[in-house]
Amino acid sequence: MAPQTLSRLLSRPRVAVLVALALPLAGQAAEGMWTLDNLPRDALQAQYGFSPDQAWIDHAMQSSVRLAGGCSGSFVSPDGLVLTNAHCVVGCVQGLSSPQRDLQNAGFVADARGEELQCPAEELNVLRAITDVSARVAAAAEGKQGQAYVDARNAEKARIESECVGDAADTTRCDVVELYNGGQQHLYRYHRYSDVRLVFSPEYAVGFFGGDPDNFNFPRYNLDAALLRAYENGEPATVEHHFTLKPEGAQAGELVMVTGHPGRTQRQLTVAQLETVRDVSLINTLLWLAERRAMLGEYGRLDEEAARQAQSDLTFTDNSYKVYRGQLQALLDPQVFAAKRAEEARLREGVDAAPWREVEAAQATARQIAVPYMLLEQGRGFDSRLFSIARTLVRGADERTKPNDARLPEFQDAGQGRLRQTLLSTAPVYPAFETAKLTWSLTKLRELLGTDDPLVKSVLGNRSPAQVAKALVEGSTLADVAERERLWTGGAAAVAASDDPFIRLARAVDAPARAVRQRQESEVGAIESRAATQIAKVRFDKLGTTVYPDATFTLRLSYGDIAGWEENGRAITPFTTMAGVFARNTGAAPYALPQRWLDAQARIAGDTRFNFVSTNDIIGGNSGSPVIDRDARVVGLAFDGNIHSLGGSFWYDPTRNRTVSVHSGAIVEALKSVYGADTLVDELLRK
Amino acid sequence: MAPQTLSRLLSRPRVAVLVALALPLAGQAAEGMWTLDNLPRDALQAQYGFSPDQAWIDHAMQSSVRLAGGCSGSFVSPDGLVLTNAHCVVGCVQGLSSPQRDLQNAGFVADARGEELQCPAEELNVLRAITDVSARVAAAAEGKQGQAYVDARNAEKARIESECVGDAADTTRCDVVELYNGGQQHLYRYHRYSDVRLVFSPEYAVGFFGGDPDNFNFPRYNLDAALLRAYENGEPATVEHHFTLKPEGAQAGELVMVTGHPGRTQRQLTVAQLETVRDVSLINTLLWLAERRAMLGEYGRLDEEAARQAQSDLTFTDNSYKVYRGQLQALLDPQVFAAKRAEEARLREGVDAAPWREVEAAQATARQIAVPYMLLEQGRGFDSRLFSIARTLVRGADERTKPNDARLPEFQDAGQGRLRQTLLSTAPVYPAFETAKLTWSLTKLRELLGTDDPLVKSVLGNRSPAQVAKALVEGSTLADVAERERLWTGGAAAVAASDDPFIRLARAVDAPARAVRQRQESEVGAIESRAATQIAKVRFDKLGTTVYPDATFTLRLSYGDIAGWEENGRAITPFTTMAGVFARNTGAAPYALPQRWLDAQARIAGDTRFNFVSTNDIIGGNSGSPVIDRDARVVGLAFDGNIHSLGGSFWYDPTRNRTVSVHSGAIVEALKSVYGADTLVDELLRK
Repeated sequence: MAPQTLSRLLSRPRVAVLVALALPLAGQAAEGMWTLDNLPRDALQAQYGFSPDQAWIDHAMQSSVRLAGGCSGSFVSPDGLVLTNAHCVVGCVQGLSSPQRDLQNAGFVADARGEELQCPAEELNVLRAITDVSARVAAAAEGKQGQAYVDARNAEKARIESECVGDAADTTRCDVVELYNGGQQHLYRYHRYSDVRLVFSPEYAVGFFGGDPDNFNFPRYNLDAALLRAYENGEPATVEHHFTLKPEGAQAGELVMVTGHPGRTQRQLTVAQLETVRDVSLINTLLWLAERRAMLGEYGRLDEEAARQAQSDLTFTDNSYKVYRGQLQALLDPQVFAAKRAEEARLREGVDAAPWREVEAAQATARQIAVPYMLLEQGRGFDSRLFSIARTLVRGADERTKPNDARLPEFQDAGQGRLRQTLLSTAPVYPAFETAKLTWSLTKLRELLGTDDPLVKSVLGNRSPAQVAKALVEGSTLADVAERERLWTGGAAAVAASDDPFIRLARAVDAPARAVRQRQESEVGAIESRAATQIAKVRFDKLGTTVYPDATFTLRLSYGDIAGWEENGRAITPFTTMAGVFARNTGAAPYALPQRWLDAQARIAGDTRFNFVSTNDIIGGNSGSPVIDRDARVVGLAFDGNIHSLGGSFWYDPTRNRTVSVHSGAIVEALKSVYGADTLVDELLRK
Repeated sequence: MAPQTLSRLLSRPRVAVLVALALPLAGQAAEGMWTLDNLPRDALQAQYGFSPDQAWIDHAMQSSVRLAGGCSGSFVSPDGLVLTNAHCVVGCVQGLSSPQRDLQNAGFVADARGEELQCPAEELNVLRAITDVSARVAAAAEGKQGQAYVDARNAEKARIESECVGDAADTTRCDVVELYNGGQQHLYRYHRYSDVRLVFSPEYAVGFFGGDPDNFNFPRYNLDAALLRAYENGEPATVEHHFTLKPEGAQAGELVMVTGHPGRTQRQLTVAQLETVRDVSLINTLLWLAERRAMLGEYGRLDEEAARQAQSDLTFTDNSYKVYRGQLQALLDPQVFAAKRAEEARLREGVDAAPWREVEAAQATARQIAVPYMLLEQGRGFDSRLFSIARTLVRGADERTKPNDARLPEFQDAGQGRLRQTLLSTAPVYPAFETAKLTWSLTKLRELLGTDDPLVKSVLGNRSPAQVAKALVEGSTLADVAERERLWTGGAAAVAASDDPFIRLARAVDAPARAVRQRQESEVGAIESRAATQIAKVRFDKLGTTVYPDATFTLRLSYGDIAGWEENGRAITPFTTMAGVFARNTGAAPYALPQRWLDAQARIAGDTRFNFVSTNDIIGGNSGSPVIDRDARVVGLAFDGNIHSLGGSFWYDPTRNRTVSVHSGAIVEALKSVYGADTLVDELLRK
């Protein structure tokens, strides 16, 4: 699957403001994640003879969907049907499952609309308009520095977003997006759907066939596809724009485009920032993930129910591990780093070096606070859903007493719908699993901060991590949604009166966590952001405006064509077939097809194309993006990159970086021949 | 504990020949691990007014003991009593324990000699003589390259060792040691004790008080002390030389010396080699260890018995993790690397750069084969005792049909005693634990080599790692010592006839493992070794012979004095007291003193010094070394370094690198007041 956990783990809130202006290497066909208001028309015309008009662009924009949790999707019927990846609906499926009803492993198909199941916490966004608000944000921060600079920008952005949302918070979402990191601020206005229902999700065993070993590899055989439906007022939403499916797909060499929401790239970091990423962030994160995956894996060996509880955490941890391992590998490649150095040297030639020097100086602080930031502010020292609920309640109570524009961004009005939805999700909480994760992460907290650290002492006292975790989970009532609602609605007074152990823990952690966040923002983020603005100007001066901004989890189009690549002298062809998955089936997980597939084998046309690769430039967050042809018909569903795409965080390699997609024909064939979902097939193929 | 697992995990056999000539930074007091035939007499005299005579040196040499498994120790009575660390006898204690008799957590004191328990597999070595055989080894390899060079040297060394051992293999061990990596070969002749019995070992909770969080930290409160006894012909061995204990210890600022067996340092690697260590070896190893520690930790949460089974593996894994994390941190320090570059530049000035270039060119292969080498030849892909037994049987059968000088070094006559002892150890094998480790490591094997790798396919077939692991462990009879003995004695024919699943697995792995080892040796090791010889000559020319060789798990003396250091502006004083451990006791592991200690508190003189730090330059393998004063009296027992000592693999930092030791007085006080071991105390204090 594509690394959308990138954004899940690192970018909310970000460790550092890491986005800067793009400096594409010369002549790299297909490179770029382009905003829809600045498509590379010349390149598209020159390479593919394609010139999309405004109607085409509007149609593509309003047919594309963002899953607020970190994925992409698209409308594929006028009745609000959304095509996305199976791995993008794991949160919904897991939340709807219980020990008695395991939708994740059994799969789910709604035979009729009335059987579609509401996801406990899902939000869809559809982009309606982009407005340039750069001048307004710049004016607000004019002449300011450090924390004042951060605060002024945040406040102005909050005001802009509030004005945009107006009193339509239920159906409107507005985000000020920093493009070209400080080069431009654009206001993105979305239509927001908060009633989202599960229509179809395949068995985990075929949605993620090959599991972690095959993840980011190709040839590949995954039905990583799922269907959701947007509802409004209790009825399927009627949407003005949707893509239609083309089951014949596209041919090798044909132009294909991906419209989706890449989460984050770091292609324009300075060398000093890249060194911090390589030597600090990635190593700390990888070591943490390595332990976490083994902890979850071993927990899952207890019994089938434990395995079910741990499944989605484990899948995401394995996935993130592979993503970051690939990123580290790319940054450890001396050639990649040499190219980055050369690129920076060219940019710095003949201009004031101060911005680069300031960024470099800020790295000492970035390195120093990396571990406490990860443990306290990112919350990795308290790895449990109950802690994250408690933090939302404690901080939320605190922040909501402030005026909107003075709050931490994640508590501002623009995001409150989603925040509340996540907080009040009915997805079950599993006490033993919470205890295991918390025990482990409290051990890491003590290990990394030291036994004699004041916070560690106050959290553990005279007890072991296991004792503390057990007491917290057993003593808490936050697993109860009604109690969470009471505390959220009751606000500061209710939270202050609570002596729930998790609330007490979140209160104890809050001050040191906010302190390290403030150091990060004022001593690192503000400096990097200001410097990036100046570096952006240098880039514009030297390269003009025909560049794309680093990814920001906003709508982008990437173009390319269906093509394999060469691996150690061996040609990898771009298509696999459905017969191939039966050939690869061993009967043992993760290579065990579900019984329903084995039973259906005779009915499936074996030569139906299953997965394919193309040269589109995508990254985590793009999972679930439609792959469309020049007629805006869906020919595939992006769900992964190949192993070489992982370096795509830092640079695009046209010879080997590939997007991996489910073929449109395989989606139709599976729905028809395996799942007997004829009504859905009709809806998908209706013109 | 000191990082003796360094040698356990990496140096048998080595991934690369990484030892070269020493180039001490100027004026670093106390730096150096000196061979006993080349002590830094001038520095000792100048700094401490101490000039040891030959009798002193002989006495120190023959009173010092090597634990062949990777530790140090010393004779402390004429009746063969050996003082070492508790963490050095973990293998023995774990091997003697069972679900019914948990010596590791309960501790053990033999009330009388008849109650001393024979360790299942322990070997002690006492150095008797050092002979320079450089000329003979050089002559044998004259003019040879690649594999021929490796083979010729190995064969000549095997001949020298065989001649030295003669027909006294039971009591003699001879090793040709490469000092100054090719600069000199010295023959080390040891007296060998293979009947070793456990006399005293404290409860794990006090031997490793503070556990992983306090490991490599100071202030510290560990009774990391144990007593073994060497036996010969069924009776306690009578030894000619032993140290006597000085319970008063030594004072701050006083000269103290450590005589022990540091395992491996890498202070003289070229910059290209250090980059491989930093970017490949350490990262691969750390990620592996990170997962392994979490896997073991979670396994141990199953129940008390599972925790007991996993305890020593977990302790060693945590320890190694911390060691390598510290090493990586040191190599990621831009100042350390800049110093290494500057050092190399000075050395290369005005001389032929070919050796450095050849080493650099060989790194491409080193990097390429690092993962298969780790999985197949180091056996990490098959993490289980039964696999390691099967490999010894399969390879042993094969190698022992060859003449001694044509065998892989570890199967040559010199090491067969220890090899057989380890193979036939009666330490119990725990099927569920074996299955868990094997399941996990087979998953790593598949992850790192890929599902479609031919060996992975042949090992897993159509089964999952869990299924394969279960079938292997359930189907094997190798847990039975008699069966192992039958196969070892039966040799090639017996092993060929066996269809034990582990024997079949070891056979399947053997050819690819040997292939990657041969590439390592001929395409990396041989080149590095020849180049190092040339670089060594440059060093000798520029610096003379007043340098020490990198550590080689052979006897070294390091000198220094008792001194604290400054940490973030705070002075760390060099001593702790026994009262301190009661103050730090929380009652929750790893800060829970055993009941026996709580009961004894009133009897213990609280101001007895417990642990102390000194400036001695030590490294993993030094664990258990005596700390002696100028009168060769034991004032302490080295068991750890502080956190800054971990960079000691690459350089010595006189301002912060510290050895951590148990004070001699605390050993006596604990034996007397906690354990009531008056007879042992009398033996220790007898003049």
